Amino acid sequence: MSDAVAEALLARKDEILERLMALLRLPSVSTDPAYASGMKATREFLMARMTEGGVQDVRLLDGGGQPAITGVWNGAPGKPTLLIYGHYDVQPPDPLELWKTPPFEPTIRDGKLYARGASDVKGSTLIAVETVIEFIKAGGCPVNIRFFLEGEEEIGSPSLGAIIDRYPDALVGDAMISADGGRASTTLPTISVGSRGLTALRFTVRTASKDMHSGRYGGSVRNANHELARLIASLHDEDGRIIVPGYMEAMAPITAREAEDAAALPVDEAEFYDGVGAAPYGDARFSIRERITLLPTIEVNGMWGGYIGTGSKTVLPCEAHAKLTMRLGPDMDPVRAQALVRDHLLAKAAKGTTLSFEESGNGTPAFTLREGHPLLAAAETVIRRTRNRAPVRARAGGTIPITAIFKERLGLDTITFGFAMPDEDVHAPNEFFRLSSLEEGLRAWPLLLSELGTVTPETLARG
Amino acid sequence: MSDAVAEALLARKDEILERLMALLRLPSVSTDPAYASGMKATREFLMARMTEGGVQDVRLLDGGGQPAITGVWNGAPGKPTLLIYGHYDVQPPDPLELWKTPPFEPTIRDGKLYARGASDVKGSTLIAVETVIEFIKAGGCPVNIRFFLEGEEEIGSPSLGAIIDRYPDALVGDAMISADGGRASTTLPTISVGSRGLTALRFTVRTASKDMHSGRYGGSVRNANHELARLIASLHDEDGRIIVPGYMEAMAPITAREAEDAAALPVDEAEFYDGVGAAPYGDARFSIRERITLLPTIEVNGMWGGYIGTGSKTVLPCEAHAKLTMRLGPDMDPVRAQALVRDHLLAKAAKGTTLSFEESGNGTPAFTLREGHPLLAAAETVIRRTRNRAPVRARAGGTIPITAIFKERLGLDTITFGFAMPDEDVHAPNEFFRLSSLEEGLRAWPLLLSELGTVTPETLARG
Repeated sequence: MSDAVAEALLARKDEILERLMALLRLPSVSTDPAYASGMKATREFLMARMTEGGVQDVRLLDGGGQPAITGVWNGAPGKPTLLIYGHYDVQPPDPLELWKTPPFEPTIRDGKLYARGASDVKGSTLIAVETVIEFIKAGGCPVNIRFFLEGEEEIGSPSLGAIIDRYPDALVGDAMISADGGRASTTLPTISVGSRGLTALRFTVRTASKDMHSGRYGGSVRNANHELARLIASLHDEDGRIIVPGYMEAMAPITAREAEDAAALPVDEAEFYDGVGAAPYGDARFSIRERITLLPTIEVNGMWGGYIGTGSKTVLPCEAHAKLTMRLGPDMDPVRAQALVRDHLLAKAAKGTTLSFEESGNGTPAFTLREGHPLLAAAETVIRRTRNRAPVRARAGGTIPITAIFKERLGLDTITFGFAMPDEDVHAPNEFFRLSSLEEGLRAWPLLLSELGTVTPETLARG
Repeated sequence: MSDAVAEALLARKDEILERLMALLRLPSVSTDPAYASGMKATREFLMARMTEGGVQDVRLLDGGGQPAITGVWNGAPGKPTLLIYGHYDVQPPDPLELWKTPPFEPTIRDGKLYARGASDVKGSTLIAVETVIEFIKAGGCPVNIRFFLEGEEEIGSPSLGAIIDRYPDALVGDAMISADGGRASTTLPTISVGSRGLTALRFTVRTASKDMHSGRYGGSVRNANHELARLIASLHDEDGRIIVPGYMEAMAPITAREAEDAAALPVDEAEFYDGVGAAPYGDARFSIRERITLLPTIEVNGMWGGYIGTGSKTVLPCEAHAKLTMRLGPDMDPVRAQALVRDHLLAKAAKGTTLSFEESGNGTPAFTLREGHPLLAAAETVIRRTRNRAPVRARAGGTIPITAIFKERLGLDTITFGFAMPDEDVHAPNEFFRLSSLEEGLRAWPLLLSELGTVTPETLARG
């Protein structure tokens, strides 16, 4: 039956594309309160479609922030229950001036659909929703389904814990399929077996109690911009190696299997760097693939201090700010990673200056799906059928916090089965999603649900 | 007659204070086009007052930017003609949230008048205007007067050259008195004999052609924030000494006289640092006074890169920006100073990154008034009378570009005779001007004009 469902989905792929474009027109930026109405419209759009398509008990799960959307289909007694994860929020679109077409006016050029959220991750989320709807239309799903479409993925899922606490019944299942977490190659078939962790650190440097005139104080008072620059410069050596004491040592050494998997998916260096207009960079003891999927990072996502408006201002600023996030390798503890960076900054801070750290959550450890897991086996079977070869096992450089949190809080394993590709400029201007990926997703998702229908709930839950 | 004029000014000091407060309510921020109407209202206010007070030929001098205000009084044949310099523009008021009372709602607390521009330099400018008006009312000035009230002082006087070119007749005189350039001590009487120069450098670092997802690229592509931090950190050593090759060597060695004058006005270290809540800092081979008045500086007035909005964004930014200004010691060439810093940054920039420098003008060299100059002699006489002791000769750490430009373009020497004090938070939140300084200025300015009336135009012009 899964083949028939896939055929039916492909037969109405233009309609699904129209629906995706409508979804992309709704600006669901979770980090910025200015987009509250876009968030609401996006929820309403998805809930209406799910309800219309036969998904039952469609409702919001409110943890105090942006609510998540749930909905169930329970018509397969004795079969496993799969949670399906996606998220309806997107990253901020700025810098707006660098978009060729507006971020919330989806535009097709050369087989690519350009819009904020097209690749991350409204495209893959809609594939999952439409697959379930098509199964229901055809008489029923091969597994029981429980949707969990989050509204805070792009801001680190701050109220996910509260949702889990408040709605324990809404999140019961045997395993999870995530529509988030894309593919690692534009050419080779891949399957994701893990992802880096993520944690954040935001801080302010103060060198004086007030801003000063650079003529009156320049030369005798420490400039907060200089001090922040010095602190940031102390995190890496000139080759990009992290030199925070204990930080690199906090990750588990790369295993032989991890090295082998990484080598099976070599990164074309020229293509990688040409694609973003950058020069080679990073710790040369490791391959690019290892660097972007296994090694931890410390990135200053934002920094600012002093006068940044139009024109000049001869101010000697007393404070400067930085927003850091750290990607974490296997086995790194997020809170410990934060503490290592914080302690390093405090140790490096000049006498008489103060650092204040903003509360920014605990973060998420790296996630790894063990070899031989039934989720992995099912996904590999599907990919062998749709791509005619076994997939390469790839780790994602990004972070799918949900996988670690659901593992930790609910004991659920996750297979990531999203159809984004690595060059689609997510979190950046001109994000796009390939129309061919939409088609591929609509072909593969019915097969995956069918494969998982052949596993007993117990086997799947055991992992 | 100057005593009678001073008495008359003091008799109506409440009225003058009311007028100053009205002037401070007009937000004349020259750097930001959003304040265009505040600039216009400020010009109209001053021009109306000057005209009403008997200043003749009050009009605007338009150099293509914010016009300057001029006006003359030529009733003293055979006497010198003094240009009177002031400026009606002010620095931006941000960060707004740090003001105790709004920057454009002047408020008196404890004998201090709080408002943006109170100290720098609407207070001293109005003292000069009212002094001339009072002389006119009393029958005439002891010298001929030519006002030049600039509207672009806070942005580096970009169209001053054009104004000089267009209106050569409007700027003819024997010497200049500047209401800008405050006093160096809150206790000792001082007279300014020079000021540091100023030049700017604004640039952007690019490490890639687009912003990237920190999960997909983190660890293998250079982060523009890190690179900017590294470049900024390369300008100074840990003690705050400038380590740009050739930069410190580009200033003339401090002379014995300069060292003696600096020593005559020792900075109370505890008071200096407590006043701004900062720790001691700077090149310990020099005194604080030397560091803030004679040594050159490089200050990053503003820097920013990546996501600086609400919440987080896990972006790996491709570009970051910095706005620098450099204070210049005696004999330093502004263009050469810019070039030294630019060349240093280019030499330090990592391979594969690009630096682009924004056009930011040539800047202004330091200014020095020679010993024995009639302007200096007259000012010293006035201060001996009003303060009962000889003033200490002080250099200003700030920059009065006009003094250098008028010297270079028109051969005019300048005495700075402003009444701001060094602790008045100019260019920062909660700027204020002492009411006692208003009174002191109204007492001293009539004396200064009278003293200069005893000098022949030729002697004054020769300097």
